Amino acid sequence: MQISPKRKAELRDSFSRQTIMATFGAELVELDKGHVVIEAPISPGALQQHGFAHAGLTFTLGDSAAGYAAMTWIPEGQDVMTVEMKINLIAPAKGDMLRATGEVVRPGRRLLVVRSVVTAVENGRETDVALLQGTMIPA
Amino acid sequence: MQISPKRKAELRDSFSRQTIMATFGAELVELDKGHVVIEAPISPGALQQHGFAHAGLTFTLGDSAAGYAAMTWIPEGQDVMTVEMKINLIAPAKGDMLRATGEVVRPGRRLLVVRSVVTAVENGRETDVALLQGTMIPA
Amino acid sequence: MQISPKRKAELRDSFSRQTIMATFGAELVELDKGHVVIEAPISPGALQQHGFAHAGLTFTLGDSAAGYAAMTWIPEGQDVMTVEMKINLIAPAKGDMLRATGEVVRPGRRLLVVRSVVTAVENGRETDVALLQGTMIPA
Amino acid sequence: MQISPKRKAELRDSFSRQTIMATFGAELVELDKGHVVIEAPISPGALQQHGFAHAGLTFTLGDSAAGYAAMTWIPEGQDVMTVEMKINLIAPAKGDMLRATGEVVRPGRRLLVVRSVVTAVENGRETDVALLQGTMIPA
Repeated sequence: MQISPKRKAELRDSFSRQTIMATFGAELVELDKGHVVIEAPISPGALQQHGFAHAGLTFTLGDSAAGYAAMTWIPEGQDVMTVEMKINLIAPAKGDMLRATGEVVRPGRRLLVVRSVVTAVENGRETDVALLQGTMIPA
Repeated sequence: MQISPKRKAELRDSFSRQTIMATFGAELVELDKGHVVIEAPISPGALQQHGFAHAGLTFTLGDSAAGYAAMTWIPEGQDVMTVEMKINLIAPAKGDMLRATGEVVRPGRRLLVVRSVVTAVENGRETDVALLQGTMIPA
Repeated sequence: MQISPKRKAELRDSFSRQTIMATFGAELVELDKGHVVIEAPISPGALQQHGFAHAGLTFTLGDSAAGYAAMTWIPEGQDVMTVEMKINLIAPAKGDMLRATGEVVRPGRRLLVVRSVVTAVENGRETDVALLQGTMIPA
Repeated sequence: MQISPKRKAELRDSFSRQTIMATFGAELVELDKGHVVIEAPISPGALQQHGFAHAGLTFTLGDSAAGYAAMTWIPEGQDVMTVEMKINLIAPAKGDMLRATGEVVRPGRRLLVVRSVVTAVENGRETDVALLQGTMIPA
């Protein structure tokens, strides 16, 4: 399915105003109806104590991919907020970069149920590192 | 209850190696047995699209406060990892800084159940913005 | 705080229409503003494979205590539904009965954030067996 | 992939000892490596106040399908327990019966990450009513 060029521009603009994305060097690499991909390097300033990506980076990307996926389902000019998000961390987030893919599982009018998977890419090999499931609300 | 000076030093050292903490300007301000407080400014590089703190910052602080609280319960030389974490965002995270207080609800040998509350401080007034509940595993 | 006698009667009537409660022998033992207690025996028909209470019983009581706590916060004639619920099971649910205490953490207009603790009572001694955190929506 | 006939028999025996399953009339209808289906009627004794299936029934089936899926991954003679489970309820559970399909997303040695989807079947038409994501531990 398609999203309108106007909505696409709105969402890219919204993303560019999330300053945490620039801090992490994150980019919005896919933006389709109910499907969004965000990538960021595992950079020197985003690590936990063993040198892997911090769960905070993993969460930030997974939550945002899910949030923008939800925003592709709601009318122009409107936004969403995260109501709640559950993350299961299933492998150490090591490698060159993280890729978060967000999807809308249930695009309700009052609430949208979303999921993300975050993978770590190391030497071109991709490993699932986290699964997120949560709820967004139009705001 | 007390934690040993050696363990306290280990945990402060571990925190200092989490480079995401320096990126966010976060500080470990309380470190007691099963009770940890981390604070960070709501700085220009940690915002969402409306200028509030990004949920990624809120999560990072809440998860880390819970993780270090868990680490106060386990033997010297050992670490924990987040198995899973659920966050409910209950108010916009606006103000000058965020304060995350992590606690251990169930200090099991194989798993530790933890909770955090994150508050936003604005002009000296503190508001709860997020509640986290999750599981840590000795690693 | 008080809830009106009319609301109290509505909620007791609602509870009596939840047939799963009769199936489990559950009773609504406290019903105050934002605070509800439900108890049920650990009966022969509610067990898992080792003879402890099944997580399904624990969840049922914890979710319902939280839901009725939320209902004390909303107008007469209205209802709530569970949007999502997270349960951490922290000890085996063994003993004579389970007691679920539900509370409202954030009584929003559009969403209510709730928590429950479920305890098992064995020979008069009470042990926490589960912690729930979730979201209710007026319906 | 296959599970041994001995393990299959063990798991069917374990299921038959979960007395809550008989209470709900639930049956184990598929039992394959990492994939389990449990069905139960939406019976008169398992309802919430509007006559739909209670979330407690939905959770019981979803959690158990996930748990038995996890058990197909661990050695004969061993069991699992639910560490934590998150459920998002995405549609009213109305109809003739519920069908829960559990899967293993990450079969770790110390922890297994699982998911379930629960559908309601009404006049032969199937609707997703709940999504679960959680963690099991060998016990």
